[in-house]
Amino acid sequence: MADIFARRMGTVHRSFIREILKVTADPEIISFAGGLPNPELFPVAAMDKAAHEVFSTIGASALQYSTTEGDAGLRAIIARRYKENRGLDVDPDSILITTGSQQILDMVAKVFIDRGDKVVIERPGYLGAIQAFSLFEPEFVSVSLEPDGPDLAELEAAFRAGAKCFYSVPNFQNPSGVSYSLAKRQAVARLLDEYGVLFVEDDPYGELRFMGDDLPSIFSLRKNPGILCGSFSKIAAPGFRLGWLVADRAVLDKLVIAKQAADLHTSTVAQAIMRRYLETNDIEGHVALIRERYGSQREVMVEMIRRYFPPEVSIIEPEGGMFLWATMPRGASSMDLFDAAIKDKVAFVPGQPFHVDGTGDNTLRLNFSNSDAPRIEEGIRRLGRSIQTILK
Amino acid sequence: MADIFARRMGTVHRSFIREILKVTADPEIISFAGGLPNPELFPVAAMDKAAHEVFSTIGASALQYSTTEGDAGLRAIIARRYKENRGLDVDPDSILITTGSQQILDMVAKVFIDRGDKVVIERPGYLGAIQAFSLFEPEFVSVSLEPDGPDLAELEAAFRAGAKCFYSVPNFQNPSGVSYSLAKRQAVARLLDEYGVLFVEDDPYGELRFMGDDLPSIFSLRKNPGILCGSFSKIAAPGFRLGWLVADRAVLDKLVIAKQAADLHTSTVAQAIMRRYLETNDIEGHVALIRERYGSQREVMVEMIRRYFPPEVSIIEPEGGMFLWATMPRGASSMDLFDAAIKDKVAFVPGQPFHVDGTGDNTLRLNFSNSDAPRIEEGIRRLGRSIQTILK
Repeated sequence: MADIFARRMGTVHRSFIREILKVTADPEIISFAGGLPNPELFPVAAMDKAAHEVFSTIGASALQYSTTEGDAGLRAIIARRYKENRGLDVDPDSILITTGSQQILDMVAKVFIDRGDKVVIERPGYLGAIQAFSLFEPEFVSVSLEPDGPDLAELEAAFRAGAKCFYSVPNFQNPSGVSYSLAKRQAVARLLDEYGVLFVEDDPYGELRFMGDDLPSIFSLRKNPGILCGSFSKIAAPGFRLGWLVADRAVLDKLVIAKQAADLHTSTVAQAIMRRYLETNDIEGHVALIRERYGSQREVMVEMIRRYFPPEVSIIEPEGGMFLWATMPRGASSMDLFDAAIKDKVAFVPGQPFHVDGTGDNTLRLNFSNSDAPRIEEGIRRLGRSIQTILK
Repeated sequence: MADIFARRMGTVHRSFIREILKVTADPEIISFAGGLPNPELFPVAAMDKAAHEVFSTIGASALQYSTTEGDAGLRAIIARRYKENRGLDVDPDSILITTGSQQILDMVAKVFIDRGDKVVIERPGYLGAIQAFSLFEPEFVSVSLEPDGPDLAELEAAFRAGAKCFYSVPNFQNPSGVSYSLAKRQAVARLLDEYGVLFVEDDPYGELRFMGDDLPSIFSLRKNPGILCGSFSKIAAPGFRLGWLVADRAVLDKLVIAKQAADLHTSTVAQAIMRRYLETNDIEGHVALIRERYGSQREVMVEMIRRYFPPEVSIIEPEGGMFLWATMPRGASSMDLFDAAIKDKVAFVPGQPFHVDGTGDNTLRLNFSNSDAPRIEEGIRRLGRSIQTILK
C-alpha cells in the first residue's frame, strides 16, 4: 500500500499537537496544550444577528459560488483596518481572502517551493508552517529565535547560503511567544532586501498586544514587498476559517491560480457573515476585550510559574498572543514531563516538534488564552510538581 | 520576477472559464457559460433558520477550531443518505469533510502524484481537476468520452501503459453531460481492479438525474476501493464550500495529513449550519424540486436546439446534471463562435480547454441549470444564429 503514495508523503506526519489534543480530552485534565482562543469571548449573539441579516437580505448570493479573490467589501474593511490601526497603506486589490491563514502556507509552498529549495524558519517554528512546507520537500534551515527575534548572524548566513524564502511570525510567535524588537525588525528587513529573499510574514496574533508599543511589520519596513498574512481566527472566531494575504500583483496572480485549484474560493457564506459582523459591530472594542482578558490570564500564568516552577526553569514572558515558552535545564526531557504531567492531570505541548533540527527536547509550550485564572493557578501548581519530579 | 516561482507554476493558468465569466458580466448577455446552480432554488429561509438555531444553541463551539476529519453528525448523515438513496454501505469514519469537492482534487494530487506519474482523465475532462492535478506535474493521458462512457480500448491501453490514477465523473459529467452506462461502469471497474489503478470517482451531480434509472457507482462495483467524492454544492448550496470524500483507512490517513496542512479543517460554522439544515428539513424533497426544475430547463434547451441549431451540430442529450455538450462540424471553431455569440449577447464555454490534448476546437459546453425557459429559448435562438454565421 505504502508505495502508492507520492514521495512527498514520506516526510510528513499527522500533527503531533492534534494527536496530543486527543489525549487531553479527559475533562479532569487542565490543558495548556491547545492553541485555542477563549470561546467565552466569541461574539456569538452578534454573529447570529449578522447571519440573519445576510440571509434575509443577500441570502441567495451569499449561498452562490463567488470570486477566487474574495468579497470586495471584506477586503476593503481589511485594508481600512491596516490603515487605521497600523498606518499601513494596502490596496484592497492586493488582498486575497483565504480559507484560514493556514491555507496561505500551502499556497505559498505550492507557488514558490521546488524540491530542495532552502526555506528559512525560526527555531522553534510554527508547526503548521513546517507541515505545509514539508509537503513540497524544501530543505529547512532553522535560525535560533532569541527573546528579541532571530539570531541575525545565523539569519544572514542562511540568506548567504542561498535561501529562497524566510517564513517568520514576528509578533508573539507560536510557539515561543517571542516578539521581534524594532531593531531586529529593521535588521531583518535590510537583510531580506540585501539578499533578495522572499519574505512571508505571518501575523495572526499582532493585534493581541498586552503591553509595550505596537511595532511596524517587517513587510512595511522593506523596499521589496513580501507576503503579509492575517487572520480573523484570533480577533473574531476561527470556526469561519477566514484569513487573508497581502501581496503585489505578480505574486497575487500566481496565488490566485493556486487558490482556484485548491478550493475555487473561500466560503461565500462565511465571508458575508464576517463582513456584516464587521460592518455592524465594534471590532476594535472587541479586540480590546480579548487583549484585556488574555493579558490578565498571562499575568496569572507568569505569577504562578514564579511561585510553583523550580528556579532553573526559564521562561520568555510574552507581550501578547496566546503562548508562553518555558525551558528546563539541558538534559531534562519534556516528553518525560508530558507523561508525568498527564498523571497529574495537566497537559502542555512538548517543544521538540517545533524544532526542525530535532533539538528543543527540554522546552515546552504553554497556552494561556483558553484557561481562566483558577485553572491556570491549579494547572501551573500541578505542572510545577511534575517538573520537580522529573528534575530530581 | 518569473524565476522566483516554482517550476510547477509554469504549467498552469488562471481558469479560462473564470476569465470568460468576467466577459459575460454584462446583464444583457444570456449566459450559458457559467456552471452555477440556480440560486432561485437555494433554501435561503431554511438556512437562515438553521444558522439561528446553531448560533443560539451551540454557538461557541460552532465558532471554534474543530477536527480535521469533520463534524461527526454531518458525516453520519452523509453515510445514512448513501445507504438510503444509493444502497451503499459507508462507515462514517471513512468520510472526510472537505472545503468543497475541489479541495479533494488538490489533496489527491498532493498525496498520490509524483512528477511524471500518468494520470488518466476523460476527454473532454473537468477543468478543475486538470488545474488541480497540473500543479503536481503529472503526465496526463486522456481517453475519449463516448455518449455512454469512456472508450474501453483506450482506457485499457492507458492502464496497461502504467497509469497511476484514473479520475472520472461517471454521472452527468462536466463538461459533456455524459453518464456512463451500466455495462461501461462494470467494465471500468474490472479494468481498474485488473490493473490496480487508483480510482477517483467524482460525483457532484449524481443526485440530479431527470430520466432513466440510477446506476451504481463504480466505487461500489470494484473489489479494491477507491476515492468517492461528493458535494453539497449542487443539492443545497455551493457558498458553504462543503464536500466530502469516502476512502479506506490507509488512504484517509494520508488525506487527513494533507488536509491539516492545507486548511486545518473545513469551516466549523458551515458544517454546523449544513448539519442543522439537513436534520430539520426535507433534503430529499428539495433535491426532487431541483431535479424537476433542471429537467424541465434541459427539455427546453434540447427542444430549442432542435429548432434553432443547424442540423450539422450534434448534441449529447444529458439524463441529469447541469450541462449539455454540442459538437460542430470538424473545422468550425468555438472560439470564433464565442466572439460572434458575444456580439449577439449570448455566451457559452468553448470546449477546447477541457481537452488536455488540445483538440475539441469545434465543441462547446452549454449550462442549462441557471437560466429559465424564456431565457433559454431566446439564448439558443441567438446562438443558433451565431452558429449559422460562422458555419457559412
